[in-house]
Order: sequence, then C-alpha cells, then structure tokens
Amino acid sequence: MPGVKISIIGAGSASFSLRLVGDLCKTKGLSGSLVSLMDIDKNRLNAVHTLAKKYAEELGSDLRFETTMNLEDSIKDASFVVNTALVGGHSYFEKVRQISEKYGYYRGIDAQEFNMVSDYYTISNFNQIKFMFDVAKLIEKLSPKAWLLQAANPVFELTTLISRVVPINMVGICHGHHGVDYIIEKMGLEKQKVDWQVAGVNHGIWLTRFKYEGKDAHHLIDELLEKELKNFKPTNPFDDQISLVAKDMYEFYGRMPIGDTVRNGSWKYHYNLETKKKWFGEPWGGVDSELGWKWYQERQAERAIITQQVAKYFKENPKAKLLSKETQQAIISTAKDDLKKEYTKEVYELLDPEKKSGEQHILLANALLNDEKVDLVLNILNKGTIPGIADDVAVEIPVYADKNGIHPYKIDPDIPERIKKMYLMPRILRMEWALEAFLTGDRRVLEEFLIRDPRTRSYEQVVKVIDEILALPENEEMRKHYSKK
Amino acid sequence: MPGVKISIIGAGSASFSLRLVGDLCKTKGLSGSLVSLMDIDKNRLNAVHTLAKKYAEELGSDLRFETTMNLEDSIKDASFVVNTALVGGHSYFEKVRQISEKYGYYRGIDAQEFNMVSDYYTISNFNQIKFMFDVAKLIEKLSPKAWLLQAANPVFELTTLISRVVPINMVGICHGHHGVDYIIEKMGLEKQKVDWQVAGVNHGIWLTRFKYEGKDAHHLIDELLEKELKNFKPTNPFDDQISLVAKDMYEFYGRMPIGDTVRNGSWKYHYNLETKKKWFGEPWGGVDSELGWKWYQERQAERAIITQQVAKYFKENPKAKLLSKETQQAIISTAKDDLKKEYTKEVYELLDPEKKSGEQHILLANALLNDEKVDLVLNILNKGTIPGIADDVAVEIPVYADKNGIHPYKIDPDIPERIKKMYLMPRILRMEWALEAFLTGDRRVLEEFLIRDPRTRSYEQVVKVIDEILALPENEEMRKHYSKK
Ligand SMILES: NC(=O)c1ccc[n+]([C@@H]2O[C@H](COP(=O)([O-])OP(=O)(O)OC[C@H]3O[C@@H](n4cnc5c(N)ncnc54)[C@H](O)[C@@H]3O)[C@@H](O)[C@H]2O)c1
Ligand SMILES: NC(=O)c1ccc[n+]([C@@H]2O[C@H](COP(=O)([O-])OP(=O)(O)OC[C@H]3O[C@@H](n4cnc5c(N)ncnc54)[C@H](O)[C@@H]3O)[C@@H](O)[C@H]2O)c1
Repeated sequence: MPGVKISIIGAGSASFSLRLVGDLCKTKGLSGSLVSLMDIDKNRLNAVHTLAKKYAEELGSDLRFETTMNLEDSIKDASFVVNTALVGGHSYFEKVRQISEKYGYYRGIDAQEFNMVSDYYTISNFNQIKFMFDVAKLIEKLSPKAWLLQAANPVFELTTLISRVVPINMVGICHGHHGVDYIIEKMGLEKQKVDWQVAGVNHGIWLTRFKYEGKDAHHLIDELLEKELKNFKPTNPFDDQISLVAKDMYEFYGRMPIGDTVRNGSWKYHYNLETKKKWFGEPWGGVDSELGWKWYQERQAERAIITQQVAKYFKENPKAKLLSKETQQAIISTAKDDLKKEYTKEVYELLDPEKKSGEQHILLANALLNDEKVDLVLNILNKGTIPGIADDVAVEIPVYADKNGIHPYKIDPDIPERIKKMYLMPRILRMEWALEAFLTGDRRVLEEFLIRDPRTRSYEQVVKVIDEILALPENEEMRKHYSKK
Repeated sequence: MPGVKISIIGAGSASFSLRLVGDLCKTKGLSGSLVSLMDIDKNRLNAVHTLAKKYAEELGSDLRFETTMNLEDSIKDASFVVNTALVGGHSYFEKVRQISEKYGYYRGIDAQEFNMVSDYYTISNFNQIKFMFDVAKLIEKLSPKAWLLQAANPVFELTTLISRVVPINMVGICHGHHGVDYIIEKMGLEKQKVDWQVAGVNHGIWLTRFKYEGKDAHHLIDELLEKELKNFKPTNPFDDQISLVAKDMYEFYGRMPIGDTVRNGSWKYHYNLETKKKWFGEPWGGVDSELGWKWYQERQAERAIITQQVAKYFKENPKAKLLSKETQQAIISTAKDDLKKEYTKEVYELLDPEKKSGEQHILLANALLNDEKVDLVLNILNKGTIPGIADDVAVEIPVYADKNGIHPYKIDPDIPERIKKMYLMPRILRMEWALEAFLTGDRRVLEEFLIRDPRTRSYEQVVKVIDEILALPENEEMRKHYSKK
C-alpha cells in the first residue's frame, strides 16, 4: 500500500501530533503514508519531527515524515488535512482576559453562558477564525478532494462556517464524548451491555440515551452522583464529569451533560472564583477558573520543555530507546513527579501497538480511505438529524464512516425540548452572531454579544473593552476588518 | 339579521370596550348582535354599560347589551370572545417592580431584552396567563365553535400557548402595525401608492417591505429620520416611532422597527433613566421608564374617573346627548385640559358613523361571519410562513380574513437573517421559557430567566427576588404551582 499524504497544521502541538502519529503507526491501512508536519515555530516543529520519527521507528512502522513551515506546500496533494493550530497561542487569550477584566469582564469577554472553555474564543479570536477559514480556502484551491479534519477550536463555529461557505469535505473532531466511557467505568458496568447515545453541539453534548441490558439506566446515574458526591473533591481541574455542577445541570435538563458540556453551564456556576469553587470543587474551581487554567498552562509549558529535552536527547543519541531507564533518567528527571509519571504513561501507551489514542481522526481517515466502517461521534451539518435545529448548523452526533462518507445515526430518543430551547438554541444563536460578525465585519455585532452579557453595566463599558482589544498590535487585521461600518 | 353574541371579558376597560362597541355599531353585518359585557368590577362594568348603550342609541344602532360578572354565562353561546382583562390590574405590576428594584432589577424582573413593555409581563404574571388559559378552556367546553380574539397581553406568549394546547379557533390581535400609517403620514405620501408589509412577532414587528410607486423607498425612511431627528423631542411618552432608538435599531437591523418594537430593544437603550432619556427623548425617556409609565398610569386613572362621571351623568340625565355643551360642561370640566380635548375628540370620533376605531377585532369578526374579506395584521401560528421560525410559534403577519378563516400572505421579501438570528430568535426563546415555566410549574425555569439577565450578579439575588414575589398574598396559587419541583 502506497499510503496517502496527511498534513498536520500546527504540528508543533506535541501531544496531539504524537497521538496522531501513534495512531497512524498502528493503522495498517495507512502504512506508507507521508505525514507532513507544518508549523510556524521551528523549534516545536523539529522536536515533534524527531519524536515522531522515533515513535514510528520503535513501532516498526513505515510512515514517512516531512516538515515544512509553508502552509501551501503542506496542503498540496494531501488527502487529509488536520488543522490543530492556535494562532497567537495561549498568550493571546491571556492578553484578552487581562484587558477584559479591567472592564469588569471576569474570565474575558469571550467567556459566555454555555461557552466558558478558556481557549474556545469566538469574539476576540478573529485571527484564529480567519486562519482556519483561509486553510479551508487553500484546500479548495490546492487539494479540492482532501478532507479537512478540524481539530482546532472553536470547532462548533468553524465547522458551521466552513461547511456553509467553502465547498470542501470537512468535519469537526473532538473527544468530549469519552465522558460516557468514564461514567460507565465509574459505574463498573460491562461496556458491551451499555447502549448509549450523545447528541448536541460541540462542547454542548448530552447523554440522550443510556440503557443497560436493554433497560433505561438513568437510575444508575442518580446512584453514581449520590455516591460520588458525598465527598466531592476533584483530582485535577479537568475532573468534572462527576461534580456538583454536572449534577445540577443533570437535574434541571433531565440528561447528563457529557465532557466539556459540564464546563459550559450558565453564569450560575461561574460568577466568580468562589462560585466556581462551590460547583467545580476545591481548590481550583474547575479548569476555566484563573487557578485551574493556570494549572493547565503551567503543565503545558512543562510538557513543552520536556518535549524539547526529549527531542534533543534523541537527536544527540539516535540509537537510544524511548522507554529505557537511561532515557528516563536523562531527560525527564527535572519534571515534577506527577508530570513525569503522566508523561511516561503516555509514552508507554503510545508505544503499545494495540492501544490507540482515543482520538478519532485516524479512525476516520482509515474508514474513508479503506472502507473500514467505524462508529464515531463527529461534527457535521445537521441536515434534519436533530429536529428543531436548522439544517445548516453543525451538530455533534453519532455517525458511522466508510468509503462513502459520514452517515448520521438516528437520534433516538430525541434530545429533550428543554435542552433544545434553554441550552442548545442559546448556544447556537451565539455561534450565529459570531459568524455574522466574522462575515460582515460589523463591529456592532461584537458589541451586541456584550450588550446581552450579564457583566455589562453600560454601553460605554462595551465600547471601551472592544476598542482596547482591537488596539492590540496583533489585531491590526482584525481592526481593519471591523472598521468597515 | 339576528346578529351574534359577542363576549367582552374585562369589559370594564372602558376605552377599549367603547371602541369595540363603536365599531360594532358601524358594522351592518353585525347589527342586532348581543354584546355581553363581563367584568369582576361592578362599577367599571356598569359605567361601560351605560356609555355603550348611549353610543348605540346616538348612532342609531340596534345592538343589544347585557352585563354579567359570571365568566361562563358570558362565554356560553358566544360566537366571539374578546379577552381584554388584566388580572390583578396595573397595581400588581407596580408591586413586582418595587420588589424587583430592591434586588437590583430596574423596571422589574419581567423587563427583558426585547420585551420592555411595562404591562407585557411573562415571568411574574402567572395569574394573568392562567386566567387567559382558563378562558380558552372554557370556550372549548361551552362554545367550541367560537373565536377567541386575544387582546390582553402578553399576546405573543398567550397566542402561542393557547394555539398549541387548546383546540379552539383563536387569534392574537394588536394594533402596533399602525406605526406604518404614522410613518407614511409623516412622509406626506399618498397611502394608495405605498406597498408595505410588516412581519415578526407581537411587539417585535419590522417593516420588511416599503415601496412607493413600485420602487423601494427606504431612502425616504433615511430622509425622514434625518429630518425629524434634527431636534428630537417626543410630544408624549408613546411618541417613539421616529426617535433616536428607532433610528439606531433601523441602522443595525436594516429594517424599520414598527410600533411597540421600538420600545423593545436591548438593554443598550434601557440601562437606567438617563440612558432611556438619551434614546427615547426628554423628559420621559419613553413610556416604559418610571416617568413615562407614571404619566400613562395617571392618565389612565383620570380617564377612569371621567368615565365614571360621564356614566353617572347619563344615568341621571337619560335624555342628554353625548356631545352637547351641557354634557361637556357638566362632566369633564374637572379634567386636565389636554385630557379634556383628547376625550372630546375620542367621543366625536366614536360618534362619527364613518370612522372606525382602527382596532381589528370587529373587522375580523365581520369577515369571518359575513365573508367580508379584509386585509389585517394578526397573530397566528407560523406554519411555514416565515422560514427559519418554527411552525408552532405565533407570528404577527399580514393576512386576509374571510368566511373560511385567516389566510397568511407570503412574506416577500423575507425578514433579513440578522433580524431572525439576533432579534426574533432571542425573543422567541424567552417566550418558550415562559411557556415551559407555566406548563411545568418548575420554578428553576423562572430562575433561568434571571440567571441569563444582565442585572443579575449572583444566584442568591435570583432566589431572593423570586421568593419575595411568590410571597405576595395574591400569588398563593402561583406559589403552589411553582412548589412542585
Ligand atoms: N479538538 C480537540 O479535541 C482539542 C483538544 C484540545 C485543544 N484543541 C484545540 O487545538 C488548538 C491547539 O491547542 P494547543 O493547546 O495544542 O495549542 P498550542 O499553542 O500548544 O499549539 C498550537 C500550535 O499551532 C502553531 N501555530 C500557530 N500559528 C500557526 C500558523 N499560522 N500556522 C501553523 N501553525 C501555527 C503553534 O506554533 C503551535 O505549535 C486550540 O484551538 C485548542 O483549543 C482541540
Ligand atoms: N392588544 C392590544 O392592542 C392592547 C393595547 C393595550 C393594552 N392591552 C392589554 O389589555 C389588557 C388590559 O389592559 P388595560 O390597561 O385596559 O387594563 P385595565 O386594568 O384598565 O382593565 C382590565 C379590566 O379587566 C378586569 N378584570 C380583572 N380581572 C378580571 C377577571 N378575572 N375577569 C374579568 N375581568 C377582569 C378589570 O376589572 C378591568 O376592568 C392588558 O393585558 C394590556 O396589556 C392590549
């Protein structure tokens, strides 16, 4: 098998890229493929390249690699383009939050009801959205038959925007639905006896069906919440699938919120740090509080450093093995203990030829290319799948993929009306406003987000915070874009 | 012609009832009808009865009247039931506002973006909504072939609720679309050369088509706004069709907001009295500010007094005529000058056998009964008329009525996407939440309104204000209703 060309944009995002590479190595139908690693950060790119090659080598795979800092070159002749870039990096979001909080917008103007995820920005994130859109246009021009696998956020806004406007094959991919696996595990159930379904929008999915041995098993959720929340204490900021906030949302909406949906409740759970701690638990108050996000960013920074060190080590010791004692001693001894353990565990799992990463991108590519039917949860245009939601809204739903494309399963039972009318529709409208702002360049649409925001006290407040964010040096193009009206 | 029985619930609302009576007197196809005046306020009922008989007499009509304080008796055998009651009266709203403002909810918890009209309450207004719903159920039981003409607010919520849940003929009726006539008059155009259309939801309609002599005439709106707003000063609190707020909404949404829609913008125009004055003009800041509403209520109170005085006079002087000098001297001499003039003008217009009131209720009844086709603007379920809005949402649209019922005209051109996605859908969702609250009795749905409200700072604030409103003595049934969960 000759394999295909797979482009990864933003490949410098090490853990994600290496998970994809690991999956590729373990997928026979994609052997011999060329992985084009593209990034604008030379150091990160080279480090990922070194490690990717090492993984492929130790897994005995015939995967090939190239690196490039040229977007067009990476996209050209690709069969699959995975976009996982973050334009401006995480530091841009910090700038936006800093300015926002001066004007009373706790956690940033982009923190909105039902969208509190700290790197899922849709208002101030023009550069990111523009870049993602441009990549889609380039695919249309250079590799019109390719599939765009949209991994970078905001997946909901981007999948809807690109699917509507750019005539290419594309799909939005996330992994939040694994929250269900977590729940099943916690319950100690036998996976094959569980019949479940999730549906909603990205970062807004709900467990719409949950049966055990053919019978409705919601009582098991009630029991699990009761048992686990007696002494509620998260093990890390991301540990929120079973939490007081999940329980509160479950009780009000009648279905369990899954994955990142738990982060995306109303302001009831997010007014300030004290409130977040009450609902998401001590000491962080969830990953999207100032404490939780700091924890995450510091960890990411450490992982980036370790990645560089590991790559450097292998460049200098090309015969060394990934999991040898010397390697461990030499390179990750300076990392914190829990991070060391975690990193080692990841390396081990990546090396396990049987264990895939849990990401869906390569499973999808394999299905589309080699007709290896697989069930997935993906983001595609609704087109009638969920009644009551417009056809041209990207929904996150259970599908199966094969050489003929992506086929949605029937949502049965349907999403409850309360979830549609009180959760999904408000979230969908904000996506529509974000797209309206982006496509028209009408600054007043950005203002409307904030006029309708619980943190706004006056129109002047709205104007000032937007002015100051637009004035950031990296936002020159955004400023021009929003000057038209 | 034997005529039919027409029931007016809340007939004590004098000006509205007398307008209907005046129209009935002037509609040949409804001569000989029996008007059943129903109210729980004996004094108001009798006063309206006396005046209604006087009007019919002086107009030479053979309309018959009965009064009753029994709802079932009034509804039984009616062909048309006009519901214009206000359960709890305007003073209930004042109580809600007083409590609300203690907790930081300026102008009351029911004041919401896109619904700022001070007697269009949907959250705290359980008694009113329940009563309206019960009247519909009674019609289903006692006069299943009758038409319910829903005049009392909230027309949007009630028309949707009743149309969905109670299998009777019903329609919501308002008069906001007359804002277009006002605009045409101000422009000095010839009415018959203007081709216009409005569409949206009650109190949220927009001028979607505006042509003069076959050509688009939006430039005339631009010119009118430019000219009239040079020195912007409203003549009374209701004078807002041509205002700074109307202009701002027109510029953002691309179409002219019509009638009460102008009152129903975002918080941008309503943060506080100073803001309202800026947009709606001095000295009142629009009719929904504390000053504007006070002006309106004081005026209504004076009109009620005058009505009582006039009725008393005619009871004591049965041979006196409505417009004689003696009558004027005797009864309205104590009223303020401008109110005196206004009242006299109204009496005069009511007595003019050619001039109808401008209300649509009797025009509709006549069309349905006597197949006298007429073009109207009414509230009925969408059923595909406006694309992108669900079928079962009550929309306010141009229709024609005849003996076969009510027939919507095609909305052409369609309502712009921005209006649907940024104005109508948010308004529609709030209607859905209000219905969800009413139908489920789930107090947390009421809380959600406020959790999403720009005036809310904490969940405790939400709980306290709702607790205190539920604790009002008149809200015992509401309290029980919302205790279920
Ligand atoms: N879909 C998912 O499951 C999922 C999970 C986590 C994060 N994400 C998203 O993935 C994105 C990346 O997140 P991250 O935490 O890895 O960020 P990161 O900053 O660690 O990595 C992003 C990479 O993109 C590169 N980049 C920036 N601008 C670029 C450009 N113009 N062209 C090419 N590459 C460019 C950077 O150099 C960097 O290597 C974010 O949008 C994040 O929200 C998605
Ligand atoms: N659709 C329209 O064009 C339009 C215009 C203005 C006002 N309204 C609405 O009409 C309603 C009445 O407003 P208003 O200003 O005339 O109020 P109002 O208080 O002056 O009159 C309401 C009448 O209803 C009566 N009433 C109260 N409870 C009753 C009950 N249980 N049974 C029978 N009658 C009862 C009162 O005694 C009173 O006579 C309000 O909902 C208002 O918002 C509608």
